[in-house]
Amino acid sequence: MLGVALLGSGRMAHVYGPKINAHPQLDLVTVFNPNRASAEKAVAAYGGKAEDKLEHVLADDRVEAAVIATPTNTHLEYVEACAKAGKAIYCEKPLDLTLERVDRCMNVLAKQPVPFMLGFNRRFDPDISLLQQAVRSGEIGDLTFLMSWSREPAPPPIDYVRRSGGYFVDATIHDIDLLCWIAGEHPEEVYAAGSCLFDPGIGAEGDVDATMTTMKMPSGCLVHINNSRSCAYGFDQRLEAFGRRGMLQTRNHRDDNLIRWDGERTDAAMPLKHFFLERYDASFHHALDEFCRAVTEGREPSSTAADGRAALAIALACDRSRREGRAIKPDYL
Amino acid sequence: MLGVALLGSGRMAHVYGPKINAHPQLDLVTVFNPNRASAEKAVAAYGGKAEDKLEHVLADDRVEAAVIATPTNTHLEYVEACAKAGKAIYCEKPLDLTLERVDRCMNVLAKQPVPFMLGFNRRFDPDISLLQQAVRSGEIGDLTFLMSWSREPAPPPIDYVRRSGGYFVDATIHDIDLLCWIAGEHPEEVYAAGSCLFDPGIGAEGDVDATMTTMKMPSGCLVHINNSRSCAYGFDQRLEAFGRRGMLQTRNHRDDNLIRWDGERTDAAMPLKHFFLERYDASFHHALDEFCRAVTEGREPSSTAADGRAALAIALACDRSRREGRAIKPDYL
Amino acid sequence: MLGVALLGSGRMAHVYGPKINAHPQLDLVTVFNPNRASAEKAVAAYGGKAEDKLEHVLADDRVEAAVIATPTNTHLEYVEACAKAGKAIYCEKPLDLTLERVDRCMNVLAKQPVPFMLGFNRRFDPDISLLQQAVRSGEIGDLTFLMSWSREPAPPPIDYVRRSGGYFVDATIHDIDLLCWIAGEHPEEVYAAGSCLFDPGIGAEGDVDATMTTMKMPSGCLVHINNSRSCAYGFDQRLEAFGRRGMLQTRNHRDDNLIRWDGERTDAAMPLKHFFLERYDASFHHALDEFCRAVTEGREPSSTAADGRAALAIALACDRSRREGRAIKPDYL
Amino acid sequence: MLGVALLGSGRMAHVYGPKINAHPQLDLVTVFNPNRASAEKAVAAYGGKAEDKLEHVLADDRVEAAVIATPTNTHLEYVEACAKAGKAIYCEKPLDLTLERVDRCMNVLAKQPVPFMLGFNRRFDPDISLLQQAVRSGEIGDLTFLMSWSREPAPPPIDYVRRSGGYFVDATIHDIDLLCWIAGEHPEEVYAAGSCLFDPGIGAEGDVDATMTTMKMPSGCLVHINNSRSCAYGFDQRLEAFGRRGMLQTRNHRDDNLIRWDGERTDAAMPLKHFFLERYDASFHHALDEFCRAVTEGREPSSTAADGRAALAIALACDRSRREGRAIKPDYL
Repeated sequence: MLGVALLGSGRMAHVYGPKINAHPQLDLVTVFNPNRASAEKAVAAYGGKAEDKLEHVLADDRVEAAVIATPTNTHLEYVEACAKAGKAIYCEKPLDLTLERVDRCMNVLAKQPVPFMLGFNRRFDPDISLLQQAVRSGEIGDLTFLMSWSREPAPPPIDYVRRSGGYFVDATIHDIDLLCWIAGEHPEEVYAAGSCLFDPGIGAEGDVDATMTTMKMPSGCLVHINNSRSCAYGFDQRLEAFGRRGMLQTRNHRDDNLIRWDGERTDAAMPLKHFFLERYDASFHHALDEFCRAVTEGREPSSTAADGRAALAIALACDRSRREGRAIKPDYL
Repeated sequence: MLGVALLGSGRMAHVYGPKINAHPQLDLVTVFNPNRASAEKAVAAYGGKAEDKLEHVLADDRVEAAVIATPTNTHLEYVEACAKAGKAIYCEKPLDLTLERVDRCMNVLAKQPVPFMLGFNRRFDPDISLLQQAVRSGEIGDLTFLMSWSREPAPPPIDYVRRSGGYFVDATIHDIDLLCWIAGEHPEEVYAAGSCLFDPGIGAEGDVDATMTTMKMPSGCLVHINNSRSCAYGFDQRLEAFGRRGMLQTRNHRDDNLIRWDGERTDAAMPLKHFFLERYDASFHHALDEFCRAVTEGREPSSTAADGRAALAIALACDRSRREGRAIKPDYL
Repeated sequence: MLGVALLGSGRMAHVYGPKINAHPQLDLVTVFNPNRASAEKAVAAYGGKAEDKLEHVLADDRVEAAVIATPTNTHLEYVEACAKAGKAIYCEKPLDLTLERVDRCMNVLAKQPVPFMLGFNRRFDPDISLLQQAVRSGEIGDLTFLMSWSREPAPPPIDYVRRSGGYFVDATIHDIDLLCWIAGEHPEEVYAAGSCLFDPGIGAEGDVDATMTTMKMPSGCLVHINNSRSCAYGFDQRLEAFGRRGMLQTRNHRDDNLIRWDGERTDAAMPLKHFFLERYDASFHHALDEFCRAVTEGREPSSTAADGRAALAIALACDRSRREGRAIKPDYL
Repeated sequence: MLGVALLGSGRMAHVYGPKINAHPQLDLVTVFNPNRASAEKAVAAYGGKAEDKLEHVLADDRVEAAVIATPTNTHLEYVEACAKAGKAIYCEKPLDLTLERVDRCMNVLAKQPVPFMLGFNRRFDPDISLLQQAVRSGEIGDLTFLMSWSREPAPPPIDYVRRSGGYFVDATIHDIDLLCWIAGEHPEEVYAAGSCLFDPGIGAEGDVDATMTTMKMPSGCLVHINNSRSCAYGFDQRLEAFGRRGMLQTRNHRDDNLIRWDGERTDAAMPLKHFFLERYDASFHHALDEFCRAVTEGREPSSTAADGRAALAIALACDRSRREGRAIKPDYL
């Protein structure tokens, strides 16, 4: 059993809480929130004890690992504190909104090496993971095109948009990470176009809600990402990998397997009622599982801080490309 | 070029007329109808000359073959006359509504052997023909289940129903012929259940408009047919062959390849707007082509009078089974 | 919380054990098996205490309900004992292999009324349940055809076949129950054809491994069931409901949503790797949930002993129809 | 009847020849080729008379219209000659490989106005045309994303590549025209990335065989094009239009409607055996039909020289973007 402190007790913490609780090898020791009342609510639901002082959490020997699910702007402060205390770390994405802050933190991690996993949960989705394995095993030959669709059912509240770091850093970063991981390489150059087509409030913040991103890979493989903050038929999540010998597609999950034929439409399914918590429920579980096994087996988890930095560098390049209307080379280390 | 007389100038004759006209090896010499005005209309559209006396048609040496597309109750009278005149014969299905009449005609054909092809056009549909070849070639191993759906968009006029010989002889006979041809054997016994669920006028004639038929084959293969005179989403035509090593399905043709996703339905196609003339257009052409090639090559066409007699015997057994509520052995020769 | 005794600790008990254990309103008090060692293994996995004497189980006041998952030939003996002890009963299907024994038991239940639910778990499958609700709500108008496919990946051991009561009573009974429940009526007459096409050992027992069943309903609705003990591509489970206004189909669940295109096949999915435990996993959970809620709310569970008797009467009529080659009226009460 | 001269008797002329011949309102008067023997072969197949002198063709009063299907580098010379002779013109795409030459020709056309139609045949494909109508009618609300896939089964001969004007001008121009026509606007800016991933011979010519193109429209709508010169499963042709209220997709045509299930793959179709002549056969016919009707009705055909110039300007901007690695504004008039 691995003793775990859950840092944070907001929305994402309520994603991890029940999964830590249900995991046979994880033991929820503590839930931390500077606001003790909030921590106590999570404790009531998932167990452990509530703490409002981080030093108490880190001083507890039963806490071997921390799952950081706090607001983005606090991620790296807690990562550094946990690293210094020698705790294994699972941190929700993104690491931070700036490369400067990420680089400072990576220096800390280099000096205080602890197991570190970044929560790019979609890599652990069973369908996406099957596609990645099939591509990496050469099933479709050399990869030539890679495409991703992530269209959300409805725009988030403006307050969320304001703190998100922009659409590319907030959302496209998932597609960026997945596609680089599937392709096994990072882009030399990116180009992104964006519009505000769904929610004028997003445009008023200087952000966009519809984007198309192109990434050109060193191998020549071409990558496309298609993102929108609104989608009339629900949460549209698809991948398409095209190689010299064939194509692989992950199709949308349906909420049911009932097909309708009538005088209006034939062969029809219902709209996609789920959003990311339902669609990627299994992936959060599998991500925690990978973290637990990596720590137990003494090996590096499969989604690293370097992966997070690369994805952030690419996302920031996309944002700059969108603003400057030209292709941009990401600022890799 | 094969000189052809088209007997009849009604609905089915207007299916064959343009196809004879367009066929590079067929030459439309004559259109025959006792009603000369009707024949002349067809001639205006497809060429040839109009005749209202059969003896003139048969006496014309340029007429090498007859395509019989007259009302069912005249089919065999014309078949016998053509056979006696030594003309090759293509006859629309069904041969007749009674086995007694068919048997008399088969005696005539035995004494006056001429090339004879029965118009079971659906055998020549490209998808159905591919399925039959795949089954016969052993692609799915020994056949175990075979299923057919034929659901028509809307009930025919009552007048048509009255002269049709009943639903099994009029329509199920197509499925019966296809399934026996695919299976390569005829049933030992059939069981049919029927209801009048769509058009009470059909029930008033003592007929049914919804049937399920089971045929048990000598090999043990089990066969199901599903027929209805009405279908809210159009002309539903499907086959499913299940063997020891796999399954083959022919899916419905769509009128277009446009797929719709919205807040009501996803992955949806439009209803099937076509009926049999559009759905099986190619099959009529390929059937005429087979007839022309068989006559030219001096071999027996692939859909014979014996096939027609067997299908009629089975259809009549279905009708009797439906009326008597028990399994019936068809009256084979 | 409802205190539960699990009767049996064999295969089906290991289906129910973890689900009782995980259910928030069920408390697993006892696992009973005359073979105490077997009961103890289940207790080690799911909790409760082991018992090898039924009277001890029934005497325990904490036991409010029994889940009977013992061999079929013991079901009704335990049902009667539980009823006499005033315990609520959830009994795996089938009730028994003979109507005589079922009728005696129903007399006992009539005299000792306790909540009784029969484990027709497939009714609680989310897709099937959606289809049933859509049909019953009139979405496709009056029902005219209803079809079910249940094809198993591979034949069971001969020993299982021998004790199964025959293919209709063992397996078709699921389809029979579902289709009567969806249609809202029971057949006037059934006709079944069967063959032994996959495993000659099954034929040697006088049983069949491939069947087609027709049920004619009082409303005129026609019903078809398609069963085989072998299927090259896995566990084929489909339903099709055809009404005056449209059609509803439940499609096969896929193990993943990955689609492959290459030089051999396009738009292709993988074979179905799951069998009933995986395919109907949710349905067992939802069935227990319905039982728990019905007992708690003091109402009759939605799958009754009378449903089980009717399905058995129909399955036995199918078997007799298959042996006698004629349509049979089921022996209803 | 409209008297037609077919200019050219090479590959594309053999696409148009049989369609002119079969069209009820077109009369093939002449086939022109400076190489008389080549013209005579086409005449033998489709009728008319052979000519090797253009002045004779243009002097013939029965010739009311010309279908220009000669090599690209001669298109505009013949367009100008036909315009001066007052003939209606149907010209295969592209107009030419340079904007300068196109602009000179458009001046000629402005001075000698004759009906002019550019052969962007894909607009007349029934599925694509349905999608365009649905988008333009507002069925999916304001358009936000538009995507096109055109992947060819195998690279063309190097000799073809050399004379093609580059991949964007040769092939992407079809997608560019379709997407601008569907969107109802032209891009402000384009970005294209390209690689040589399939045929090194293409790279040796300085061309690419795999491209991704982004077009940003004045409305904010974002457009993606995906092109490759090779595709293991055949001719991949798809469109996806995503609007505020839903999505429309045109799926690949299959060569047949047979679906296979076995121990290797389920729900599988065969690879796409057709290439553009088969896939777009109907569209060539419908394009000629539009030309004939527009000339007869005295209105401008629906695919104009200005459309061709705009598509060429965009394709050239794509090519430059690919070479310079930055977004480019097309050189519109």
